[in-house]
Parts: sequence; C-alpha cells; structure tokens
Amino acid sequence: MTRITVDISMSLDGFVAGPDPSLDDPLGKRGMELHEWAFRLAAWRSAHGMDGGETGPDSDLVAEHVASYGAVVMGRRMYSGGEGGWDADPNARGWWGDDPPFHVPVFVLTSHPRERLDMDGGTTFHFVTDGIDTALDRAVEAAGGRDVHVAGGAGAVQQVLNAGRLDELTVHVAPVLLGSGTRLFDGIDGDRVKLEPVPMPASPVVTHLRYRAIR
Amino acid sequence: MTRITVDISMSLDGFVAGPDPSLDDPLGKRGMELHEWAFRLAAWRSAHGMDGGETGPDSDLVAEHVASYGAVVMGRRMYSGGEGGWDADPNARGWWGDDPPFHVPVFVLTSHPRERLDMDGGTTFHFVTDGIDTALDRAVEAAGGRDVHVAGGAGAVQQVLNAGRLDELTVHVAPVLLGSGTRLFDGIDGDRVKLEPVPMPASPVVTHLRYRAIR
Repeated sequence: MTRITVDISMSLDGFVAGPDPSLDDPLGKRGMELHEWAFRLAAWRSAHGMDGGETGPDSDLVAEHVASYGAVVMGRRMYSGGEGGWDADPNARGWWGDDPPFHVPVFVLTSHPRERLDMDGGTTFHFVTDGIDTALDRAVEAAGGRDVHVAGGAGAVQQVLNAGRLDELTVHVAPVLLGSGTRLFDGIDGDRVKLEPVPMPASPVVTHLRYRAIR
Repeated sequence: MTRITVDISMSLDGFVAGPDPSLDDPLGKRGMELHEWAFRLAAWRSAHGMDGGETGPDSDLVAEHVASYGAVVMGRRMYSGGEGGWDADPNARGWWGDDPPFHVPVFVLTSHPRERLDMDGGTTFHFVTDGIDTALDRAVEAAGGRDVHVAGGAGAVQQVLNAGRLDELTVHVAPVLLGSGTRLFDGIDGDRVKLEPVPMPASPVVTHLRYRAIR
C-alpha cells in the first residue's frame, strides 16, 4: 500500500535551508552543512552515481529510503530555484543535469503549466498546476504501490501536513544552528496532525526522528 | 567544574510554549503536551513532592538532571508570567507556591530591581538587572561546583547561546506540532555556537537530543 512520506534534513533550529539562497548557492548560507551527514555515506553516493563511502546504520537508512518510493512530489523552488513563467527560468530543466537521481516520476508543484519533461535514467518531470491534492493523487497512481516521497521544500511539506495526507515523517536533525533561513515547520495546523514516534537507530553525527501520522 | 546547561522540552515544530499564554494557562494552548512525557515519571514526581510514577531510562535522565545543578537562571516571564514593575505583578512570588521545586539559588533576569526572596525548601530567588553575563557569573559562584541550569524561557536560552556561554544543551522533542507559540530557537547567532551531538537513550514517547558546545 502506498504511503505518503517526507524524509528531510533540518538544522537544530528548524531550518531546511540557510539565508540568501541563489542559483549559485541553492541551499543558502551554510545550508550544505545540513546534508554533510549524508554525503559521506555509501548509499547516498551510490544514489548519486558515485562509488565508495561509509556503510552502517546511517547508510542503511538512506538506502531504505531510496528504495522506498515510486514517485516524488516537490515544490517549484526545489525543482529549479525559480519562480514565474518557465521561459524566464534559467534552471528550467532542474538542478540535476540530464540524469536526475530520482529515476521515477516527479510531480512539481507550480502555477505555470508546462508539458512533461523526460530525462535520462527514468526520471520524468510532471508539472502540476492544480494543487497539492492533485499532485499527491497523481503521484500515488504513478508510484506502482511503492511510496510517494514529498522531497521538499518546506512549503510543499507544510501543504502535505496541513492537507492531512502525510503518513510518515522523517527528520534528520543536523547538529547545526543556522540562525535564519527557511523554516521546515511554519504555520502547521497542529490540530490536524497527530504523530506517533517510531524508534530509530542512533548516529554520532545526526539525530534521526521518525513519526507515523495517526488518523 | 561548573557547566552551564539547558534542559528543555520543545515541540517538533520548535515551540516551548503554545499560543496565548496567560496566568491561568502559563504554557499557552496545548503547551502542557510538551511535558506529558515527564509528568508520569518517578523522578519528575519525586522532584515535585509526589510519590509513584514510572521508572526507566526517561526517569533516570530526569533524576540525573535534577541532581546536576546547584543554581538556576531563568527569565522574568518564566518566573511570574508578568512584566513591568513588581508591585503590579499578581504573581510576584512566582508560580510555585511557598516551596518551589528548585531547592537552590535561582537568578531571575529582570529590568526591575528587587530584594532577594527566600522561600521554603532552600530556594532563594535573586533578581538580576544587569544582564545575562552577570546572572550566569553569580549563578556559577552560587552553584558550589555543580552545574548552572538555564531553565528558560526561550529568550533566556537564546541569550545564553548568543553569549557563547552554553556548555551543554538538552532538548526533549515531544511528538507534537503546535503550529504557533514561543519558538526556542529564534535569532541564534549560528556562527557563535558549534555543537557536537552526545548519544542519548531512546524513548518511545519523546526524543532526547543532547549537544556539547565546542569552543
């Protein structure tokens, strides 16, 4: 049965990106530090076409996540960093080059209609202009029984939470204080979302939090 | 050697109190949910003069914390919920009645001078009008080699972090989304504070995060 999941790295002070994100620095000032725990892992490197890296519980967690989903939902800014019409977006084919690391259908939330975009390696980008519920419905249909992963950014995660459609939330808390940036949890409808903690393996470099939504 | 520590409960979305705190509801809407993990524990009950409760790793953690400090620092709002001059504060003797659960000197940050207040059970309240560094210095001196615990609220914790004086930070993340309220981490100077995670026991009802500050 398809679940709708989020798996995201956050600073201890609640940010998923640092201040002043740009095309040259998409995660904002010090935002890369949120992901350092993952970059060195065998499973992360493998998912991004690289050899080597550390094995162990953290890598197993990443491998399990990568294997879990059959479709992805993401916001426009996570896709390209842009806004407005696609003709004026210098990054209109996304951040990841010709062979993005998803290898499944990806549904991009946008106000600007666009034809689907087929990339190498099985990634197809679909541009959804009628809101989070439609994006989730299409992704569930495309996922072939595997999970739908809501990749980010913060706005997309907030929409899924507030729509009451999240099944599982994983937050990797990096031991970093950014001070400002993009908050993951902002304007959550707390009465809408009830969470139950799921036990997670300990790590010396990051804290994995996982919750199941209770309906 | 005296360390300066913080040990505080926070919602997953980063709040240490819910919206609309008042004298009748000091933790704000749903704020009590942040502390439910602790209320049922033997060590918490014992520290508040009650029998019974659950034993186990969570209770051991609370017991260890209660035994660790020889002085406390807190903000004015945590002390009484009030502001302005003391004559107009209906809660000027604090929230805790005649025998507060601290049993050590407590240094209250305030702009309004006042004589020390001796309570039953060894708690003495000292009112510090010249800022966080003075409050910490006086608390370190009073702690007799034990730790200084910065109890809250969020503003006091932020001041200690930004003063670069925190030694250990423990955050108990409750599986709760409040949506709004008082954020623990707001305006932290991230370049000032470097953290190293400390392994913590797992719990089915709360996630314990602990960090040592690196200087």
